[in-house]
Amino acid sequence: MQKQPRFSGVITPVLTPFGEDGGPDAERFVEHCHWLLDEGCTGLAPFGTTSEGNSLGLDERMELLEELVDDGIDPAKLMPGTGTCALADAVMLTKHAVDLGCGGVLMLPPFYYKAPSEEGLYRFFAEAIEGVGDGRLKIYLYHIPPVAQVGFPLALIGRLIKAFPETIVGLKDSSGDWSNTAAILKAYPGFEVFPGSEVFLLDGLRAGAAGCISATCNVSAAAIRNVYDHWQGPDADKLQAGITALRKAIQAFPMIPALKALIAHYRHDPGWAKVRPPFTELPAADADKVVRTLADAHNFRLDFAKAA
Amino acid sequence: MQKQPRFSGVITPVLTPFGEDGGPDAERFVEHCHWLLDEGCTGLAPFGTTSEGNSLGLDERMELLEELVDDGIDPAKLMPGTGTCALADAVMLTKHAVDLGCGGVLMLPPFYYKAPSEEGLYRFFAEAIEGVGDGRLKIYLYHIPPVAQVGFPLALIGRLIKAFPETIVGLKDSSGDWSNTAAILKAYPGFEVFPGSEVFLLDGLRAGAAGCISATCNVSAAAIRNVYDHWQGPDADKLQAGITALRKAIQAFPMIPALKALIAHYRHDPGWAKVRPPFTELPAADADKVVRTLADAHNFRLDFAKAA
Repeated sequence: MQKQPRFSGVITPVLTPFGEDGGPDAERFVEHCHWLLDEGCTGLAPFGTTSEGNSLGLDERMELLEELVDDGIDPAKLMPGTGTCALADAVMLTKHAVDLGCGGVLMLPPFYYKAPSEEGLYRFFAEAIEGVGDGRLKIYLYHIPPVAQVGFPLALIGRLIKAFPETIVGLKDSSGDWSNTAAILKAYPGFEVFPGSEVFLLDGLRAGAAGCISATCNVSAAAIRNVYDHWQGPDADKLQAGITALRKAIQAFPMIPALKALIAHYRHDPGWAKVRPPFTELPAADADKVVRTLADAHNFRLDFAKAA
Repeated sequence: MQKQPRFSGVITPVLTPFGEDGGPDAERFVEHCHWLLDEGCTGLAPFGTTSEGNSLGLDERMELLEELVDDGIDPAKLMPGTGTCALADAVMLTKHAVDLGCGGVLMLPPFYYKAPSEEGLYRFFAEAIEGVGDGRLKIYLYHIPPVAQVGFPLALIGRLIKAFPETIVGLKDSSGDWSNTAAILKAYPGFEVFPGSEVFLLDGLRAGAAGCISATCNVSAAAIRNVYDHWQGPDADKLQAGITALRKAIQAFPMIPALKALIAHYRHDPGWAKVRPPFTELPAADADKVVRTLADAHNFRLDFAKAA
């Protein structure tokens, strides 16, 4: 029996802008989120890897999330990152998100200690679910072994779904390995799987994926949404080829600084380019190169006029 | 000019006991810390890797640290782990430690994002020092690439020492690579370097190291202290061989669960064996094997009588 998906479509791990003082800039953040929804995003996943989420303090994350809800963004569309190395902190962030009405949370496994056992990871999630203690909780597992190093093996995913069928409802697969995504889709029908890159969007949808959650949605959500809306139409492969080519052009640069440089350029707002350590901003010449490369080869530009 | 070292000798990354409810057990923790000092530890480094420090919430760490100081442990002997992925959280923990009078802090680099640039790591520490804004702050860099993946290259260490000579005062080297420790000792005389294993204690002292900070100090501090006290004596190599053999016997088992199993056994307190996810306790048969192996081959036992 296919469950009604809670999230589907095009979900953005929202970039986090910073102010002059280094703190998160709530005003730019809320503005960007509204613009992303206007561009066609079906959901927002703040505090993911692209969001520099793990460079944000616990209080900073909670305050930013409250800003979004206070500013009228439907919490059902929000899937904030709440996984941390420490159970107590993960429970606190997750409970806070559930209390705000968030439609789901995207949880990293505890990622400091390497090569944990399946049993150890299972216990982390079992204890987190018990700690939150709220039937509204919907967890999306965040599988990103290239960064977190610790991931979710296929058997663990199955064990968690079986133990918590109403809570463990989906997964973002940022392994970059389509065969892994395909294996999860095949093993667990009805589980809401999102490839971590739009490169796999069409293949994913054809195999039962729910959509994609991708860094580059921060600057190309409309084109990605177009593939999502027309994936069964005659132009689907051609549309997919377009977003794949753009994605590959962008990821040739350091992803987070490059995305921020693009927004800074088209918003005429140099402050948008600011990143937190351990990242560094692109040097001006490299930022120019990102803008020019994408404009020349992909006719890429961002239009913020309608958001004004 | 050789600076007066702030820490030297035998420093324990203190194990964190947990209670029935899964929370840190302050009573067992304080008791263990007093016992370690009685055994000859010259300092304590709570919330390190061995402490399951990254499995502790921010509030849990601060509360445990306050318990130690409230219970009469000299804060000058404390070097708590305060490095986290997020600058804001690292600043909060570090400021709290400095305000309590801690002699130093042991700081991991931000470890979520992999392969950060030297400049990015430099900025993290520069901004952390500025954020704490307290001349009493003494930072020991925590280099543990096998776990954190992100470490401190030699050039970065030099750059940090040069920029913050009064603040960046030492390093724990848990690379397990003696040639790295030797290179740091050679490059930066007067920098307080602690190998992360007593296996390198004698070699370290002969090359100018300040002592060691080692997981196994939780159960063998007295023997390690004996090497430290007699490293220039005629029996130094023989004493070193003894602690090396014991260390190698212990690290043949999963380190954290094995150390806790040993303490649980000799304290007749099964609850001591509890670990937090993603770790799991040793099965009973394996716990027995640790105890028997060490007792048979190394005449190892723990004496808690004098602590009673």
